[in-house]
Amino acid sequence: MSVIDDLAAEFAKLPGIGRKTALRLTYHLLKQSPEQSRQLAGALEALVARVRRCSVCNNLTEQDPCALCADPRRDHTILCVVEDASDIGAIERAGEFRGLYHVLGGRLSPLDGVGPEDLAVQSLVDRVSKGEKEGEGEGGGGAGVVREVILATNPSMEGEATALYVQRQLAGRVPTVSRIARGIPVGGDLEYADGVTIAQAISARREM
Amino acid sequence: MSVIDDLAAEFAKLPGIGRKTALRLTYHLLKQSPEQSRQLAGALEALVARVRRCSVCNNLTEQDPCALCADPRRDHTILCVVEDASDIGAIERAGEFRGLYHVLGGRLSPLDGVGPEDLAVQSLVDRVSKGEKEGEGEGGGGAGVVREVILATNPSMEGEATALYVQRQLAGRVPTVSRIARGIPVGGDLEYADGVTIAQAISARREM
Repeated sequence: MSVIDDLAAEFAKLPGIGRKTALRLTYHLLKQSPEQSRQLAGALEALVARVRRCSVCNNLTEQDPCALCADPRRDHTILCVVEDASDIGAIERAGEFRGLYHVLGGRLSPLDGVGPEDLAVQSLVDRVSKGEKEGEGEGGGGAGVVREVILATNPSMEGEATALYVQRQLAGRVPTVSRIARGIPVGGDLEYADGVTIAQAISARREM
Repeated sequence: MSVIDDLAAEFAKLPGIGRKTALRLTYHLLKQSPEQSRQLAGALEALVARVRRCSVCNNLTEQDPCALCADPRRDHTILCVVEDASDIGAIERAGEFRGLYHVLGGRLSPLDGVGPEDLAVQSLVDRVSKGEKEGEGEGGGGAGVVREVILATNPSMEGEATALYVQRQLAGRVPTVSRIARGIPVGGDLEYADGVTIAQAISARREM
């Protein structure tokens, strides 16, 4: 195996990159300055060396607690529970939510061998309970009383099951547990929406 | 910029990888063992540290001369001229050609500022002329008299111009200069072939 084949084999391990694309990427890098390959290698090394989990919300971060948890301008009384750290980026880009997050690190999936003990549910329960005990006297930036938990797991079969499980664990510990709305996507077309989504959009209709 | 954004930005520099895919690859690596990221980083470092150009054929290689040029079982009297080193892999996989290669390192493209001096044409002329001077007395494995040069640049506008230019430089120095056949691809469909290809396939027809 030459180093060209080695690198192509490493690229081919990434999702959505096949053998031909992996070779194309490798030859592309050979045409660029060595600096570009070194920067990519350096960014990879930095990633594994410096990224870890936030001890508060389980987000991927370089500092602990993460920038979101440490931000006193965010609303510490509302938590948004997501499956993966990458979901946080999507929600932040939408710009609608100003509270904090909690990353489960996956979803319940018995077929893949992912059970409740593999998800960061206990730390969520502890986080909510801790705020409850400390009361509202806690200063800005610390954990206040959590008044709402929004379950933003994906609207898939596993995501729904996960949301249901988390809701049961939180029952009685937080005033409100809510679920993100499911329905026709904005800009979407009823004609092409699946039946389950349409049924959901109708049953969750709101008065105008 | 976090190291996550850094790595995504590096991935996004690669061809065919946009911002979203770059982020997806980064989060994928974060879910894998750190070992996988380190292997990818190591393969990149090895690539820039060990790959160089073959001094004979300009192929990308770890040893000089490259494995193809050093192979005494290959036919040293026939050269296949290609644009890029990656084309050699495609031709080798086809298993039809047993001679040696010469990599131009690109194609003539005035719009991109690529002129004759940017391609390894002079080294090809020298290589052919050298064999000519040394004569047939040369031992196996060394440079024999080159009796044919196959121009295997791509059948694009630039590739054709490059082939024409190289052919003119070689005129009188080698008995035969040939061009790869252009026509309907095997398994292709006349109905979907473009007019230029069909015209080429008809004008280059061969008696059965």
